[in-house]
Amino acid sequence: MIYLDNSATTKPYKEVVDSFVKVSSTYYGNPSSLHKFGVQAENLLTYAREQVSSLLQVQFNEVIFTSGGTEGNNLAIKGAALQHQGRGKHIVTTTIEHDSVHEPFKQLEQLGFSVTYVPVNENGFVEVADIEKAITNETILVSLIHVNNEVGAVQPVKEVGMLVKNYPKVIYHVDHVQGLGKVPLNIKDAHIDLCTISGHKIHGLKGTGVLYIRDGVTLFPLVSGGSQELQKRSGTENVAGIVSFAKALRLTVQNQAEHIKKMERIKEKLINRLVQHERIVMNTARMNTAPHIINITIRGMKAEVLVHSLEEKDIFVSTTSACSSKTKKPSKTLMAMGRSMSDANEAIRISLSHLNNEDELEIIVSALFETIDELKKVMR
Amino acid sequence: MIYLDNSATTKPYKEVVDSFVKVSSTYYGNPSSLHKFGVQAENLLTYAREQVSSLLQVQFNEVIFTSGGTEGNNLAIKGAALQHQGRGKHIVTTTIEHDSVHEPFKQLEQLGFSVTYVPVNENGFVEVADIEKAITNETILVSLIHVNNEVGAVQPVKEVGMLVKNYPKVIYHVDHVQGLGKVPLNIKDAHIDLCTISGHKIHGLKGTGVLYIRDGVTLFPLVSGGSQELQKRSGTENVAGIVSFAKALRLTVQNQAEHIKKMERIKEKLINRLVQHERIVMNTARMNTAPHIINITIRGMKAEVLVHSLEEKDIFVSTTSACSSKTKKPSKTLMAMGRSMSDANEAIRISLSHLNNEDELEIIVSALFETIDELKKVMR
Repeated sequence: MIYLDNSATTKPYKEVVDSFVKVSSTYYGNPSSLHKFGVQAENLLTYAREQVSSLLQVQFNEVIFTSGGTEGNNLAIKGAALQHQGRGKHIVTTTIEHDSVHEPFKQLEQLGFSVTYVPVNENGFVEVADIEKAITNETILVSLIHVNNEVGAVQPVKEVGMLVKNYPKVIYHVDHVQGLGKVPLNIKDAHIDLCTISGHKIHGLKGTGVLYIRDGVTLFPLVSGGSQELQKRSGTENVAGIVSFAKALRLTVQNQAEHIKKMERIKEKLINRLVQHERIVMNTARMNTAPHIINITIRGMKAEVLVHSLEEKDIFVSTTSACSSKTKKPSKTLMAMGRSMSDANEAIRISLSHLNNEDELEIIVSALFETIDELKKVMR
Repeated sequence: MIYLDNSATTKPYKEVVDSFVKVSSTYYGNPSSLHKFGVQAENLLTYAREQVSSLLQVQFNEVIFTSGGTEGNNLAIKGAALQHQGRGKHIVTTTIEHDSVHEPFKQLEQLGFSVTYVPVNENGFVEVADIEKAITNETILVSLIHVNNEVGAVQPVKEVGMLVKNYPKVIYHVDHVQGLGKVPLNIKDAHIDLCTISGHKIHGLKGTGVLYIRDGVTLFPLVSGGSQELQKRSGTENVAGIVSFAKALRLTVQNQAEHIKKMERIKEKLINRLVQHERIVMNTARMNTAPHIINITIRGMKAEVLVHSLEEKDIFVSTTSACSSKTKKPSKTLMAMGRSMSDANEAIRISLSHLNNEDELEIIVSALFETIDELKKVMR
């Protein structure tokens, strides 16, 4: 199997699964229990939070464990908007966000908020000046994706952070889910107030993630109750999941430089081969894009048909983002970039991880070119 | 170790952990991916939902997987209130709910809802007539705990269901977290619209749970995005957690009758010994209480001190609910039952599982009585 759908989900590290098993089986106490069996679990939680905060270079009390990226984005956006609606009811995001950002904004519109969806240019990049133009006296939130999940465009999150810090009323949220481990980001340097990360995109487990909440930023908790996670996200902590997340993050950060280089090398070579095919159009820009995502349109070939043809050759790619692949809608990001409906419907995403190797390159390219030839014949 | 804090959390079944490992390591595809590696994961999800719906005797499309009981309660309560606020802004619950019900009600008060907190009698039971009196033309939600987590009182959820079905505008939510596997409940017979259950209270994993949402009931999703879980709870599904939850539920339901009998036998014998001590006052009623919870006040002894003294003898009990044990507030349920502040501060909860055995009885009783004697001397 050549797995090229790492933007959808990744293979968990063995060490990650092992630590989950160890904690679930041995340290299953409730961290809120007063007795020492509970305290053992609480200590594991504390240690994981220390590790994560140190790896992210943020404070201990700024790390909130969640059930994943979607929950993180929802807590950040709805939590900020509902908590601070007294200051204004205008919120800002872009046209190329992941559904877990886009949908909360749509829900907030239902609740009476007004939203500005800032457009992107033809390569999928938002302009800082356009964010600036969108901010009004009523604005309380700006939410921006770091690495777009469909085409890999790296957004100017630091520049936007520098801008937003001039507006003390505005909370700045970054969806870092696709960026973590692929495009280094210093949360503090970028003046980010809220930053979402997910476990299963970095070879951790599904059901794990973190929301960074800058010290002093208050949110309306979506999930309230027993005051866990510094009262920002209640519920008995998934201690095993949290410990396993800390492990996945450590392995990711430690090996980041090397893994990025490896993915960049493969990406570069793959692109150089792919562009040689007359039917292939690159949707991922050559500059300022993440090392793991290549989005291409194959003219005249429905993406879904290609995905299924490639899986017959044991190669796994995706149409658009996994989350929206079943809705059969054309790629939101490509439409926002001004591509035609047919180009958007004929786009596939190849997403790498450090587990891919250069010796897979020729297999991938041959399989793809062969598949295109086969489909051409069928379609004639 | 004699673990008597099973209302806080339980030891996961080995089979549950094994299935988590198998799925995480082998079937790690994203169920939303179109290729067959995603479809494999989707099939596991479908099979788990079939199993769970069949075990709960509800429909396939009524089972929504969550990250646990707290999320389930929040989604039920805030989801129902926010979605249906156009019909009225009055909501009803009781004074003895878990924090994960109580806090969402408090948050909804902040958002302009009015709440009636129905009181309980001296044994911790709510009266159906009091619920009836609380319902007005503006009422859109009634939320009731099935088995109270502090004293084990079984509430008349079926009778309240029969009542509420006469008010078509009112949605009926039951927090079944402490009841599942201990006090059988047929969701359909009890006319429940929303029913919360949690994995880690039935020897499943933390971070897993289900919200039953009756077909036709709409909610404002707390976590929106990629439309997973029938658009009611977005986010890449924790497939391994979900499969492991289905396994925990199957083992629970299959062995329920036998396990209940075993816990009842131990509970009965334990109570008969405990009441012989002059300092011990029973807080758990003899009738209509769950088979796994015994709440006692030990007059003149701070609960926290007792918990720590017993842990020295390798026996683990709790003060009040785990979630609120660190706030040092007196037991909410006991206060609602009209007990004095000192009785509430001197209460401990012994909570059993089927893993406890009768041969532990004498060890528990001797340890407790010895501890009381030791503490009496210290306090003199």
